[in-house]
Amino acid sequence: MNLPISFDPPHRLLLGPGPSDCHPRVLRAMAAPLLGHLDPAFTGLMNNLQDLLRKTYQTKNPLTMAISATGMAGMECTLVNLLEPGDKIVVCAAGHFGHRMIEVANRTGAHVIPHTVPWGKVFDLNQIREILQNTRPKVLGIVHAETSTGALQPISELGKLCHEFGTLLAVDAVTSLGCVEVDVDGWEIDAVYSCTQKGLSCPPGLSPVSFSERAAEVIKNRTTPCQSWYLDLGMLMKYWGQDRFYHHTAPISMNYALYEGLRVVTEEGLQARWARHKLHHNALRAGLETLGFAYATQPDAILPQLNAILIPEGLEDLPIRKAMLEEYGIEIGAGLGDFRGKIWRIGLMGYNARRDIVMQVLSALGSVLIRKGHKCDVGAALAAADATY
Amino acid sequence: MNLPISFDPPHRLLLGPGPSDCHPRVLRAMAAPLLGHLDPAFTGLMNNLQDLLRKTYQTKNPLTMAISATGMAGMECTLVNLLEPGDKIVVCAAGHFGHRMIEVANRTGAHVIPHTVPWGKVFDLNQIREILQNTRPKVLGIVHAETSTGALQPISELGKLCHEFGTLLAVDAVTSLGCVEVDVDGWEIDAVYSCTQKGLSCPPGLSPVSFSERAAEVIKNRTTPCQSWYLDLGMLMKYWGQDRFYHHTAPISMNYALYEGLRVVTEEGLQARWARHKLHHNALRAGLETLGFAYATQPDAILPQLNAILIPEGLEDLPIRKAMLEEYGIEIGAGLGDFRGKIWRIGLMGYNARRDIVMQVLSALGSVLIRKGHKCDVGAALAAADATY
Repeated sequence: MNLPISFDPPHRLLLGPGPSDCHPRVLRAMAAPLLGHLDPAFTGLMNNLQDLLRKTYQTKNPLTMAISATGMAGMECTLVNLLEPGDKIVVCAAGHFGHRMIEVANRTGAHVIPHTVPWGKVFDLNQIREILQNTRPKVLGIVHAETSTGALQPISELGKLCHEFGTLLAVDAVTSLGCVEVDVDGWEIDAVYSCTQKGLSCPPGLSPVSFSERAAEVIKNRTTPCQSWYLDLGMLMKYWGQDRFYHHTAPISMNYALYEGLRVVTEEGLQARWARHKLHHNALRAGLETLGFAYATQPDAILPQLNAILIPEGLEDLPIRKAMLEEYGIEIGAGLGDFRGKIWRIGLMGYNARRDIVMQVLSALGSVLIRKGHKCDVGAALAAADATY
Repeated sequence: MNLPISFDPPHRLLLGPGPSDCHPRVLRAMAAPLLGHLDPAFTGLMNNLQDLLRKTYQTKNPLTMAISATGMAGMECTLVNLLEPGDKIVVCAAGHFGHRMIEVANRTGAHVIPHTVPWGKVFDLNQIREILQNTRPKVLGIVHAETSTGALQPISELGKLCHEFGTLLAVDAVTSLGCVEVDVDGWEIDAVYSCTQKGLSCPPGLSPVSFSERAAEVIKNRTTPCQSWYLDLGMLMKYWGQDRFYHHTAPISMNYALYEGLRVVTEEGLQARWARHKLHHNALRAGLETLGFAYATQPDAILPQLNAILIPEGLEDLPIRKAMLEEYGIEIGAGLGDFRGKIWRIGLMGYNARRDIVMQVLSALGSVLIRKGHKCDVGAALAAADATY
């Protein structure tokens, strides 16, 4: 047979909705030799990783760990552990990932009550209060940073509201963690999941999760077994806890990567990291608006780390993304669902929230747009971005 | 706060039941920069990876891919996709992982019929025929290489037998793939799953799976949705197939690793790889028997890649494994379940099936045994091993 050729990834700058580029320290960490999943050196690393995760999530929750699969498994893990057949859940959906949550919740046998607003909008707390009052669900699920619309849902008061009605709050922090504040204890979040490949600048492959004591109690008191063996927190907590009970073989290298990624986050400091995302967002936004772009997102809810911008009238989606990828090696994101063909999503996440990258994407995008017949002033866009610093 | 210290894994030689050491080329592949999960360069890699997986599994099955989680998720994926509530499955269990299959199958709502033999034994085809005749199950599940007992189940005729009764054959190849023959098409296997961290010498984190046309048909004709969204093959095949439909963000670096691991396998050749495992097993076995060890496994079913040996009378399990780890950096495996405290498991898998490693583990183990008061002749053991080459 012909031997297969070696694979060398072409140069890319990942400015879509994720994966984002890894921090170079994370890439180096991945290349370290393996340890056994029960080796004291590895279980020691797990302890330290959990401590760093708690700092990043701003929580004291003992039940804080990394699920051995990607962010979507974190969503499934949260729902299949909190819900039993017949339980009620309200899912707030204002985009692709909110609707995903409905889909995943539907497979648990729970009674799912969708609460939707149009794509690009966020939810009103008074409306949620009304729904909680009328439905008294066991769980309310909501996406913090909706990756498909670039909208940041204000949730700092939502946990308190849920607890008035004895409801658990489950939050999707896939696109928020490491980019904007996520205050699990302060905001009274009961269950939260995220990913590694966005604000944490690691490769995809793990889902950091955390559960409040209240949620842990609910999980302990289930009357039916969790429908997933792989995602069963009752067993997973015995591996991540003191017992070190063998459950599955943890993805060793991915845990090295996450540990190093969280070290980078901790060294920078959470406040400084959020401020950095805001700083470079302001520059990018000034540049994009000068190029003629408008945001698809409700103005007071625009995510700094993911810019969902409307494709101007007369421009084609795919040829421009293709030119960006092939000519400049820059990946920007397409629209999903209601926004398919209508928006682009430009992410400046984690390691990629940098001044050099802002200028690079503005100059490349502006140049491609002009070539495709769109009238815009690239020099003015760069100057507008530069002036924000 | 105190900044967390950097993590440098201590030197280890992983000779337990897995993870085994990565091939150095695989470690280097992991450190490459990321690509987007829909980047044409990455989807091209996926195609090539599927081709290599088909070669390694010896199959033409279109539905051949890597599940984005570890081997246990491969088991769950297989069972939740093939089974619907009320379906019948016979699970053959002769060790920890056979019993795991029962546990995972129980969570699907299927009617699970366990068929057990004592740990260390393998199943008799005539008995299985009788059970198939009496129960007519939809699926028969069996472990090819039982990691907890070191036993290789002969399955080359089992697919044909299952098909006489309209039963699908699902095989756990977690510890066999890359070490001993797995002939998916020739043996008429309908569903198979494995891991990356044993015979393929990659880090843990993916589960290579393959499904026959017959199994794919059954999955397509389900009347209930798969209980797992993350492991739903109906959706996964649209991402791994021509459509490239976004489902979840694939673990990019792990796929780089698996591709490189499969390149190494293909370059060596399957026959040569199996012969190499047998060669070094024979040497290790000669040495171990000279040291006074007996196998815990039925004599005609001993796995070359995983040697399950009885701990001699009067020796303690933990102190000896601890000495091996702390003094020599060598990890060997403990016993599980019925074999807890009774056996050690020494793996020579993939990259670790080498002559230098045979001599290294014999000399270290022999030296520790003598120090602990066990009478044995290390020089004779090394000579016995050497004489087999």
